[in-house]
Amino acid sequence: MAVHDRSRGHDLAALRDLNSSVVLRELRRESPRTVSGLAGATGLSRPTVEALVEQLAARGWITEAAVPATGRAPGRPARRYRFRAEAGHVVGVDIGLKRIVLLLARLDGEIVARARHDIPSEATGAERIELLRGRLRHFLAGQGLAPHDVWSVGIGVPGMVGETGRIRSVIVPDWTDLDLARRLADDFPGTDRILVENDVNLAVLAEHWRGAARLADDVACVRLGPRISCGLMIDGRLHRGRRGGAGELGILPQLGLEQVQKGFAWAGERLPGESATDALARAVRSGEAGALDVLDRFLAGVAPAVAALVLALDPELVVLSGTLARVGDPLTPLLSAHLGPLTLHVPQLAVSTLGREGVALGGVRRALDAVEARLSGRQHGTTRSGPHDA
Amino acid sequence: MAVHDRSRGHDLAALRDLNSSVVLRELRRESPRTVSGLAGATGLSRPTVEALVEQLAARGWITEAAVPATGRAPGRPARRYRFRAEAGHVVGVDIGLKRIVLLLARLDGEIVARARHDIPSEATGAERIELLRGRLRHFLAGQGLAPHDVWSVGIGVPGMVGETGRIRSVIVPDWTDLDLARRLADDFPGTDRILVENDVNLAVLAEHWRGAARLADDVACVRLGPRISCGLMIDGRLHRGRRGGAGELGILPQLGLEQVQKGFAWAGERLPGESATDALARAVRSGEAGALDVLDRFLAGVAPAVAALVLALDPELVVLSGTLARVGDPLTPLLSAHLGPLTLHVPQLAVSTLGREGVALGGVRRALDAVEARLSGRQHGTTRSGPHDA
Repeated sequence: MAVHDRSRGHDLAALRDLNSSVVLRELRRESPRTVSGLAGATGLSRPTVEALVEQLAARGWITEAAVPATGRAPGRPARRYRFRAEAGHVVGVDIGLKRIVLLLARLDGEIVARARHDIPSEATGAERIELLRGRLRHFLAGQGLAPHDVWSVGIGVPGMVGETGRIRSVIVPDWTDLDLARRLADDFPGTDRILVENDVNLAVLAEHWRGAARLADDVACVRLGPRISCGLMIDGRLHRGRRGGAGELGILPQLGLEQVQKGFAWAGERLPGESATDALARAVRSGEAGALDVLDRFLAGVAPAVAALVLALDPELVVLSGTLARVGDPLTPLLSAHLGPLTLHVPQLAVSTLGREGVALGGVRRALDAVEARLSGRQHGTTRSGPHDA
Repeated sequence: MAVHDRSRGHDLAALRDLNSSVVLRELRRESPRTVSGLAGATGLSRPTVEALVEQLAARGWITEAAVPATGRAPGRPARRYRFRAEAGHVVGVDIGLKRIVLLLARLDGEIVARARHDIPSEATGAERIELLRGRLRHFLAGQGLAPHDVWSVGIGVPGMVGETGRIRSVIVPDWTDLDLARRLADDFPGTDRILVENDVNLAVLAEHWRGAARLADDVACVRLGPRISCGLMIDGRLHRGRRGGAGELGILPQLGLEQVQKGFAWAGERLPGESATDALARAVRSGEAGALDVLDRFLAGVAPAVAALVLALDPELVVLSGTLARVGDPLTPLLSAHLGPLTLHVPQLAVSTLGREGVALGGVRRALDAVEARLSGRQHGTTRSGPHDA
């Protein structure tokens, strides 16, 4: 993995106002392409495109593509250029209660490295941050990268994240009011490169990008594990809510979610370090007696909260993720049967196949969105469009 | 109200591809303006703009504005043009269980006529449609207009409206599966001019346009009346849900909404034709003994469903509309107190001031959106933008 120029990340701002960003965007959309092709697509003149291509190549953003070996073109074939997805990297992080998951991706989203570390259950909030910093440094060093080679980091945390970036966590209580991006700013200078987000919000981004929700724009992602939580995508965009609290139905006693979470037990065998939901998922998969009944009762308990979400939003699709997604196919008919009497229409249900990497993969997507936004001069990777803008 | 050209509505399609639509859009954004001003704003040449202005004036879309009487300009002042908002009309309709409300508006949204008619409680579904057709004809005739002078009609109905335009109504049971737009198509040729929508969905559009939610983009509008229902606006757009069922929390027994609706009674005096909520609103306003307590118990019963919405979406603002909105200010502290223990944050609450015309006003907005969409070559007044489109 060659690293061309240590200051490359800082070129981003300068690029904004240049025509070169138009050429770059075209190449990121489709590579490789010839100068003529780019001139046609951008409406710029051939000499302008030639100059821009030279500039972009010098900066390490694009490179000449190999000439295809097949076919004998008459005369010398036109040079073709491609976007250098390896020109930069982003990191996706999932820091949960018990585990850190790290993913390193190229600018085209290809995952090039992954790591997983357990967190000692007795670790304090401060120790968890130090553990994350150390693991991140080590992870990047192992790939021959320094922190400033990373253009953006998307981090999922087990708690609500308000507009100010401060966490509200009932899971890691001493993370409440923590500004995690700021705490990592020494490692990744420029906090605008670090994006902290509620974990299940990243999970829904991942499902929409590369998971079960690729074809849907109105999606609820329900994580079924030791904690039950929900992330929403509406009209193809993450819906956080005013204070980052969208999807927090666990609060409402009438829906009984807290009782289900607290009261849940699995009487079968548990491996060391396994949660009750981990063990139940394993038991169902191995066909242990009674496991499916326990799962069914668990889903009956969860159904009113899922039904409230479905009735509130009428989504296209509900993706089931988290520990119990490992159960796979049996999940959907069981939950569907409980949702039937509680809803107008049972929505399409799908089980996540992203496994333990879902949240970190959403972190990668979030980080890539931030890079895209900076490349195109927008902020935070979101576009707004009002209903009445003619 | 002069009517220039009977075939004007059909000019819409032809306008799409013309530069004139750019000029028209500029004049709709700001009027009056000079040819120079329009040339500057559109980037078109003065002669081009002059030709377009002439064309648009001949079609009746724009007209020369009166020269301001104030100030003595040196020499002859430049001609100024304005958009003719009176060039076309839209109608907003609210057809509820007991009442039809009609609003006639110009293309700039100014309401120029209004009407209200009671519906006999024993009327069948078919009779209700006939009543609506007759009242609409009569209403337009009274304004010197024929149905084809109306460019679009937005109709609010007490039921869910699916993507196919078919109604699902528990309020007027024999409207179930009705395609109301099609049934009115003979009166308003071209069904694409008739837009049928759930009534509370129109209410939220109206609140966002001219009501309590003008400054908010994430809004839940809760109608508190004989029926309790909810409309959602997310990111400045109406959120209907996959099957038009968003906000239908009344279904979920755990939230107890149906019990509140069915069990609600007001022991005080009732005027003829008044619903229990009408009578309660009147009693609270006149300071009748015990009325505020009854209202408080009603709101306590509604609170879990409102809390579920708030937790699911975390909206900026909840607008309270419907019959009980007439109570005014006392409503918000009472509901707020019940929401406190059930939510993470009590959202901002506001009481609608649009009165009985809220739904019909939303119908006007919906109809204007459809006109805007056709003027700008889009469909159905909505724009989509994915999260990753650079």
